[in-house]
Amino acid sequence: MSKNATPWIQTVSLEAPSLKDNTADAERLLQALKSHLKTPAIDIDLSLLKILPEILRDAQFNIRCVLFKEKQQWVLAGIADAKDDAPIAGLAVDLGTTRVVLRLLDLATGRPLAESAFDNPQETIGPDILSRIHFTEKEDGLKQLNELIVAGLNKAIVQLCDSQHFKPEHIYALAVAGNTTMTHLFMGLNPRWIIREPYIPVVNNPGVIKAEALGLRVNPRARVFIFPNIGSYFGGDLIAGVLFSRIYKSERTCTLVDVGTNAEVVLGNENWLIACAGAAGPALEGGVTRMGMTAGPGVIDQISVDPATLEFNIHTIDDLPPTGICGSGVIDLAAQLFLTGMIDVRGKLLPAVCGPKIRKIDGLLHLVVVPAENSATGFDLTISQADLDSLIRSKAAMYTIIETITGSVGITPQELESFYVAGTFGSFINPESAISIGMLPDLPRDRYKSLGNSSLGGATMALQSDTYHDEIDHIRDRITYLELNVNQDFMNRFSAAKFLPHTNTELFPSVKVNQNTK
Amino acid sequence: MSKNATPWIQTVSLEAPSLKDNTADAERLLQALKSHLKTPAIDIDLSLLKILPEILRDAQFNIRCVLFKEKQQWVLAGIADAKDDAPIAGLAVDLGTTRVVLRLLDLATGRPLAESAFDNPQETIGPDILSRIHFTEKEDGLKQLNELIVAGLNKAIVQLCDSQHFKPEHIYALAVAGNTTMTHLFMGLNPRWIIREPYIPVVNNPGVIKAEALGLRVNPRARVFIFPNIGSYFGGDLIAGVLFSRIYKSERTCTLVDVGTNAEVVLGNENWLIACAGAAGPALEGGVTRMGMTAGPGVIDQISVDPATLEFNIHTIDDLPPTGICGSGVIDLAAQLFLTGMIDVRGKLLPAVCGPKIRKIDGLLHLVVVPAENSATGFDLTISQADLDSLIRSKAAMYTIIETITGSVGITPQELESFYVAGTFGSFINPESAISIGMLPDLPRDRYKSLGNSSLGGATMALQSDTYHDEIDHIRDRITYLELNVNQDFMNRFSAAKFLPHTNTELFPSVKVNQNTK
Repeated sequence: MSKNATPWIQTVSLEAPSLKDNTADAERLLQALKSHLKTPAIDIDLSLLKILPEILRDAQFNIRCVLFKEKQQWVLAGIADAKDDAPIAGLAVDLGTTRVVLRLLDLATGRPLAESAFDNPQETIGPDILSRIHFTEKEDGLKQLNELIVAGLNKAIVQLCDSQHFKPEHIYALAVAGNTTMTHLFMGLNPRWIIREPYIPVVNNPGVIKAEALGLRVNPRARVFIFPNIGSYFGGDLIAGVLFSRIYKSERTCTLVDVGTNAEVVLGNENWLIACAGAAGPALEGGVTRMGMTAGPGVIDQISVDPATLEFNIHTIDDLPPTGICGSGVIDLAAQLFLTGMIDVRGKLLPAVCGPKIRKIDGLLHLVVVPAENSATGFDLTISQADLDSLIRSKAAMYTIIETITGSVGITPQELESFYVAGTFGSFINPESAISIGMLPDLPRDRYKSLGNSSLGGATMALQSDTYHDEIDHIRDRITYLELNVNQDFMNRFSAAKFLPHTNTELFPSVKVNQNTK
Repeated sequence: MSKNATPWIQTVSLEAPSLKDNTADAERLLQALKSHLKTPAIDIDLSLLKILPEILRDAQFNIRCVLFKEKQQWVLAGIADAKDDAPIAGLAVDLGTTRVVLRLLDLATGRPLAESAFDNPQETIGPDILSRIHFTEKEDGLKQLNELIVAGLNKAIVQLCDSQHFKPEHIYALAVAGNTTMTHLFMGLNPRWIIREPYIPVVNNPGVIKAEALGLRVNPRARVFIFPNIGSYFGGDLIAGVLFSRIYKSERTCTLVDVGTNAEVVLGNENWLIACAGAAGPALEGGVTRMGMTAGPGVIDQISVDPATLEFNIHTIDDLPPTGICGSGVIDLAAQLFLTGMIDVRGKLLPAVCGPKIRKIDGLLHLVVVPAENSATGFDLTISQADLDSLIRSKAAMYTIIETITGSVGITPQELESFYVAGTFGSFINPESAISIGMLPDLPRDRYKSLGNSSLGGATMALQSDTYHDEIDHIRDRITYLELNVNQDFMNRFSAAKFLPHTNTELFPSVKVNQNTK
């Protein structure tokens, strides 16, 4: 990207004031910027007016301005001598329930500079959205949750800036994408009605808010773009994902699948968008399987099983000794266990095939994935029959939702041009494995595209061009949300999808189980 | 005015949310308000979002909203149960260099409720604009001046609200009209460049600012409309005056004259507006004549002189023993002295006529207006020859400016349909007296209209309808400012105007001097 690829930084040379043109400082500057940006409205803070005359004159009216876009107008977020070369940064934030990811950008070019992540400190209050919302009903509960996430962000911002020899004051614009509840907690808004029928958020489209009002310690005039939601169960993280996938620009119909606690699916093209979300169970987010965890150093993210020896070949992030397994690892594992005949079509462990890897703990079958002597924890890393059962329910829910949403518009999954897979661990999901267990439909593999962290990707885009802000509103206004009608038909489909890969194996012609007879 | 004559208060009944319509609280409210107000854009503060869900539900979605207009959008400043009958007030402020006047309004009807005034506490720093601007160049000088006026306003607001059994929190909207320097000091903006060529303000059109950001202790979400200026020497007080005079709506050409330290004249009609300002000298503002002061209890505001006995018949405000004389009193006095032959056509005291009323103090002639035994001070209240000389210069400047501005558009003062006279003491100026001394042109008396405090009147209008906000911008954009070219021609006119009523007495056919031969 070339220098000043974004519209946020404008360098202007103003005509110095004279008796012939005694326009005030502010209007002199705004007129020039309005004509540069071709906009009728730019707002300027009182705090900036206070320092404007000296900056203009010290810089001899050659100045560099930082701008951002609000709903109805542009806003001036900073001004300096054109010769000033202090960094001007943006910060994209994926505000996850479990994990928060930050990406620092050069605001002039839109180019990413550095990333970091931290566990959402609200986890000390409750692991999931429901427990946190209940906590807000205690005295100061909302305040506590709000302060935890804001303090976490402030700490991470300092560290991330330090790594680039920046100061937090160099951050002038932020974009934050999170689910509806996380966004409410971040803004200090009462999430009480999100989980109570008829499930009403306080706000759908928060727009742009001053960082200061949110308690963020960045430039005092920095602005924060907060992604809109469609409702309590379709949040800004997904809107960001749709933006990042570009499916709303596609001539042919595509789908975006976000794999997590909820199975969230958006289907559409340049003419229409339809979305659907349903509980997929927590199996895919780590945290439920006894060895499950979110992706991080030492976590198993890929597994293959030698069909001849049934030896596990594991890969961990950063090649460290294994500490646990994340979602993409669980999917790989289940696929390999199924393809090698170690579990049956119902996902049940077959001790006769698994042999010495099987343990019985508290009356429940476990399979040892990494023996204690090879693990970082000093204990066996195992997956239990309960973990596998949970995974089967999750994958069945995902497949049923995909079947339902495509059916609702009268197409089959086979007709989809592109199939985007997102999620915090989405970058690692192996479509081959997901197809093998029947979680995703059996399409030619090249139709699958991993988006990685699409929420962070969308947040990044909101810092790269104002046109994306319009597109975000456009996406939000255009998505039709399909309420999942969990009726008998849905339950029948769900039951059929609870087999590996499916009751109807004709749907998965490419999945061939190895007739392991060992 | 009927209830809810203004657009600021809207009572809406929202459809309660349902599974069929899960629009968020904020958007549900804003959609209703947008359709009521026929506006595409209404902004809502984060602080209001935080309390919105509870208010909506406690009020069963029947609510009363307080709105105000910003440049590009409306803003929600308050929300309460529709059954809540707490007062909703506005505050108009005339931010004078010498005196600050407040008017409390019912924001629903636009009806004035009460008024109060206080001396601008910045007078402890310096009596005039120039001395205050110089003071801002000291360390913390601007901060001190800003804090003085803000603290003065906050104190006066509490007292004014107390008198109506209101709380300052009941004030949701303010409109402030002041000259360019006073407006800068009130906003905490550096006025340094206002008095230095080419005389550049920091801002021409401050728009609407949160009261909180300005340090005003009213409702935390209250908004402050600040009148725009045209430049350093044509401030928001005059724009407010033009609004109040309505001359910009008149088919026929009218003029507005603001009498004070500056002689400020606006001439125009519905098609064009031209303005001119020039130093008129301080004689008319009190503070210069030894007995001069601003209008207040005990101050002489009207004087007549018995042509036969030359006895003074004085009137004081509130009929209290006299303490001094204000501008309108000085004009009356000079007119009466001239008409009774106690001063000559050059404004010189004639001892032979004045008789025992003449004193010589420090070699300078003085005329006793109120002898010590009748004054509230225990001293003679006198007017000196120097005071009279100063008044002559002031009145000559005013007349010359009127002559110049009318001449610039090729008309004579006689062609003016209406002649509006404003100023803090404008309500008391007797046109007869002003004409007698040749300060104002000799027109039929019914063309003169006293506007009183037109700055406060305009500020009041800004709280009565949003359409006035558009008209204010319209006025500001339309006024052509005529730079006074103090050339030989101007000086000749000025010299001719330094006689009573004028060198050319044909210009003042109605002024007949009493041939007093006593």
